[in-house]
Amino acid sequence: MSHPAIFNTIALVGRHSDERVAESLHLLAGHLEERGRQVCVDARAAQLAPRALHLTEPELATHADLIVAIGGDGTMLHAARLALAADVPLLGVNRGRLGFLADIGPAQARDQLDDVLAGRFEREARSMLRATLRREDGTTQESTALNDVVLQKWETGRILEFETWIDGQYVNTHGGDGLIVATATGSTAYALSCGGPILHPALDATVLVPICPHTLSDRPIAVNSSARIEIRLVQRQQTKAQITCDGMLLGDLTAQDRVVIGPASTKVTLLHPVGHDYYRVLRSKLHWGRGGQEQQRN
Amino acid sequence: MSHPAIFNTIALVGRHSDERVAESLHLLAGHLEERGRQVCVDARAAQLAPRALHLTEPELATHADLIVAIGGDGTMLHAARLALAADVPLLGVNRGRLGFLADIGPAQARDQLDDVLAGRFEREARSMLRATLRREDGTTQESTALNDVVLQKWETGRILEFETWIDGQYVNTHGGDGLIVATATGSTAYALSCGGPILHPALDATVLVPICPHTLSDRPIAVNSSARIEIRLVQRQQTKAQITCDGMLLGDLTAQDRVVIGPASTKVTLLHPVGHDYYRVLRSKLHWGRGGQEQQRN
Amino acid sequence: MSHPAIFNTIALVGRHSDERVAESLHLLAGHLEERGRQVCVDARAAQLAPRALHLTEPELATHADLIVAIGGDGTMLHAARLALAADVPLLGVNRGRLGFLADIGPAQARDQLDDVLAGRFEREARSMLRATLRREDGTTQESTALNDVVLQKWETGRILEFETWIDGQYVNTHGGDGLIVATATGSTAYALSCGGPILHPALDATVLVPICPHTLSDRPIAVNSSARIEIRLVQRQQTKAQITCDGMLLGDLTAQDRVVIGPASTKVTLLHPVGHDYYRVLRSKLHWGRGGQEQQRN
Amino acid sequence: MSHPAIFNTIALVGRHSDERVAESLHLLAGHLEERGRQVCVDARAAQLAPRALHLTEPELATHADLIVAIGGDGTMLHAARLALAADVPLLGVNRGRLGFLADIGPAQARDQLDDVLAGRFEREARSMLRATLRREDGTTQESTALNDVVLQKWETGRILEFETWIDGQYVNTHGGDGLIVATATGSTAYALSCGGPILHPALDATVLVPICPHTLSDRPIAVNSSARIEIRLVQRQQTKAQITCDGMLLGDLTAQDRVVIGPASTKVTLLHPVGHDYYRVLRSKLHWGRGGQEQQRN
Repeated sequence: MSHPAIFNTIALVGRHSDERVAESLHLLAGHLEERGRQVCVDARAAQLAPRALHLTEPELATHADLIVAIGGDGTMLHAARLALAADVPLLGVNRGRLGFLADIGPAQARDQLDDVLAGRFEREARSMLRATLRREDGTTQESTALNDVVLQKWETGRILEFETWIDGQYVNTHGGDGLIVATATGSTAYALSCGGPILHPALDATVLVPICPHTLSDRPIAVNSSARIEIRLVQRQQTKAQITCDGMLLGDLTAQDRVVIGPASTKVTLLHPVGHDYYRVLRSKLHWGRGGQEQQRN
Repeated sequence: MSHPAIFNTIALVGRHSDERVAESLHLLAGHLEERGRQVCVDARAAQLAPRALHLTEPELATHADLIVAIGGDGTMLHAARLALAADVPLLGVNRGRLGFLADIGPAQARDQLDDVLAGRFEREARSMLRATLRREDGTTQESTALNDVVLQKWETGRILEFETWIDGQYVNTHGGDGLIVATATGSTAYALSCGGPILHPALDATVLVPICPHTLSDRPIAVNSSARIEIRLVQRQQTKAQITCDGMLLGDLTAQDRVVIGPASTKVTLLHPVGHDYYRVLRSKLHWGRGGQEQQRN
Repeated sequence: MSHPAIFNTIALVGRHSDERVAESLHLLAGHLEERGRQVCVDARAAQLAPRALHLTEPELATHADLIVAIGGDGTMLHAARLALAADVPLLGVNRGRLGFLADIGPAQARDQLDDVLAGRFEREARSMLRATLRREDGTTQESTALNDVVLQKWETGRILEFETWIDGQYVNTHGGDGLIVATATGSTAYALSCGGPILHPALDATVLVPICPHTLSDRPIAVNSSARIEIRLVQRQQTKAQITCDGMLLGDLTAQDRVVIGPASTKVTLLHPVGHDYYRVLRSKLHWGRGGQEQQRN
Repeated sequence: MSHPAIFNTIALVGRHSDERVAESLHLLAGHLEERGRQVCVDARAAQLAPRALHLTEPELATHADLIVAIGGDGTMLHAARLALAADVPLLGVNRGRLGFLADIGPAQARDQLDDVLAGRFEREARSMLRATLRREDGTTQESTALNDVVLQKWETGRILEFETWIDGQYVNTHGGDGLIVATATGSTAYALSCGGPILHPALDATVLVPICPHTLSDRPIAVNSSARIEIRLVQRQQTKAQITCDGMLLGDLTAQDRVVIGPASTKVTLLHPVGHDYYRVLRSKLHWGRGGQEQQRN
């Protein structure tokens, strides 16, 4: 499963205001430079890697052959948008606690980076979503998401009513707190808290998960990831909604607007250590098999 | 979306001990014979269609160019196994209540059959599962399922413990009442009652849904329908389990046996009236949008 | 089950900007005046009941021997706060669709009001909650709720983290979208959409229902309605929360504040037609027994 | 909260075929005899406690002032039936893993038993259920349960249809795999796996939890523990059901029979170490607050 690849220029990204991230960034920059690689970092982290190229964040992705994200899965989500835009592979180093996405521990980071530099890694393509908010006046706002595009009520009290359409077919009129449109990657994030299924990353699927739906039979629906999903608010007084992509605000939604969600034009490439095991990550993160919930069954 | 097809010989199947089924079978046999088609029916229903060919059930499928199942979704499941084995398309006529699978009402049956004979229909391929029970002594038992393969505890009281493996990778050790392995078609059947997602029939996916799992984070997982799923009981005193395919007993499971579930070698072909709308069926069957659950949200 | 009661002065309340409510209010005012009762209405609805006393809303409750709420369950929630404060019984007339609380249909309203005036009714006491928001600076804000007190994240993206304490005992630190503290009455409202149980109104219980909890074993807990429930935010950057009582904003919550929720000092009294059947209302509102979800179970 | 109590004769019960149970039983018997107490054990465990009284199991409860159950929660359920029948308090010693009911660890067992002998303990009354199976021919079978009375389909495939009545009022006609009627104690057992709420043990409530219900709005209902719950099968071909009490078979159910479930005439008394904390047990058993499910929420 390893692939020939030459990673000459490597961007290190992370929330360097976090001490542990800063420390890892400093160590890894030095390590990669010893290995003869050109490191580049955000100009705001210049003092952590004085010999690196100091660039703006968008420049990081376009200059690099590989992005190494240091931090939690939130950092990975952010880095995935950079990686997608520049079509650069992405590797995640966590800060000590296994992530769904950042699966290299800090203790193993240098050895596993050496493996990657030597071509020993597994390559995994993950689907991303593209959300487009189409305003009544014809203007649009767009963003991509590795986890999910979320429609949520905004301002309290009132139930949100909205219609869903898939590939031009009317699906349902929903009442509730909102809707999560999640990739396989996002199926273990917010969608899971709302009763959604786990989607294996190799399954080309997108899942629509209603948030606290009014109607109890309003269940998650998984569709092909090529599906074009459209959401429209039902015109009602006093409802407001927001659209977020991986937790970042895309914009407010009014009854005249539409959100269209479909696959991003390409996938993002994650690199993993050889022997990466998705189910092992699931077992660890979901606390399976440690006795789990020990209720008495007589 | 219509396809050229010549349906000269048409098998009518259904539980003819049910009066409404018998009546529909009689009427449709006469109608098809008026249209110059050769009808064939189960020999036990000979008096309902005296001019038809009277065959054994397995012969019905191999003689026919088209199977018309009359009844509920249970009849469709049964007919699907016949249709799959003989690679013949299948059309469902319900007895008055829309089914997930039997989507032609009795009132429209003659007109819609005429449409089908004239080549006006939509063709949909549905994935089926093949389950193989491998005994310790090397013997095997096999069956196919359009809805689901279910592992269930058998004899009360004790919790069932079992391991799942997907494509050779260990997934989890589960405690609970059992496991449903469902196709997209079966995702709206038993699996839905156990918290599983709805899978659109065009999504090539299989979902594993734990039944009343001991561990609350033991959630449904959807995988590619090509996946090879293996289930083994954990050796414990007094546990017994059964495997059913679409509700039909495949066999008992002991700790030395294994169940292997994968895709059937071909798909079954369903015929639908032109304009068939999966989401309309969902809305109708799940009572969406009729006010649903009218609880007060302030 | 009927009780002697003299209802000489009757307040009619409702959202009179709604035409159907205005019409019912007008008709019922006339009807009650024919029966020799003093009617009182909100001064803003004076033209709908010209001979009635025209008062401010708080005056309505203190003047009346009975409050008749016309509208949906939202109107009932509002009227319940008035009724509780003044210790006056409450009767609900719906606008054509059975409510959980407003169980007299418009067609039967005059006859059933006559029954009530004649002492033929059933009296039911419903628990209410009192929520107190205790600010760091010692100031407090208070409100009551018939359905629920809800803590919800405010401003998108970030997960909310908060601690719960019951009768001085630490319960849990929760991550998620918030928490619903619901009465039995509120158990069929928002709490039901979040996976909460139905609590029979005669059960003296309050239920804590986490909203989209991060941890899947973070399940609803029902406790005695006398319990004193305290909620504190975990100090984190950028989290904001709101507290609502029956959907009305009580205030924003910061990490230094506490919310204390306990039983209101008295219960509110609902009047029902003789033969009122809670389970019949459940069956109707939750669409039980109409075939429900018709998925095929083989 | 401690109470004067003289525990002169103490019954030790447990599955002595389990080595760890046998070892604890032997040690505790010696310890209690050193403290001048009369110990009594099942005659089949005579060699583990040679100086003890050797009795039949029913005699154990009637001779003792206190029952100490050694083992898991299954042993506690069994001991609770003995304790209830004889109105003797019950204390649980686990085998090394905290139980919901057996909350004294083996390492602390001797010290905490000394505390109990000295009157330092907390007393907690737990509701139990009484189930009566009334046959068509007038015969009855009865049993009690500390956790739950469970109606379950028996023989595979077919859905079970049954009616529920509470205090003489018709509630619903259910389709599915069965129904759990659970006490507060049982709410953290099987009922939790089926979507039931946690009921605090001090709440006098019983919860009806449908097992894999056909209709998704068929949700758990909590009622007063004084409620009289009646279950009747809907007459259908081929359905069979079983009734179990705490996992022990009470009998098979046919469409002519009825099950009536109500509170046992008395409660069972559990003794706990001083400082017993129900929520601490919940946190430990349900893995709350250990990071729980660490899915990424952006």
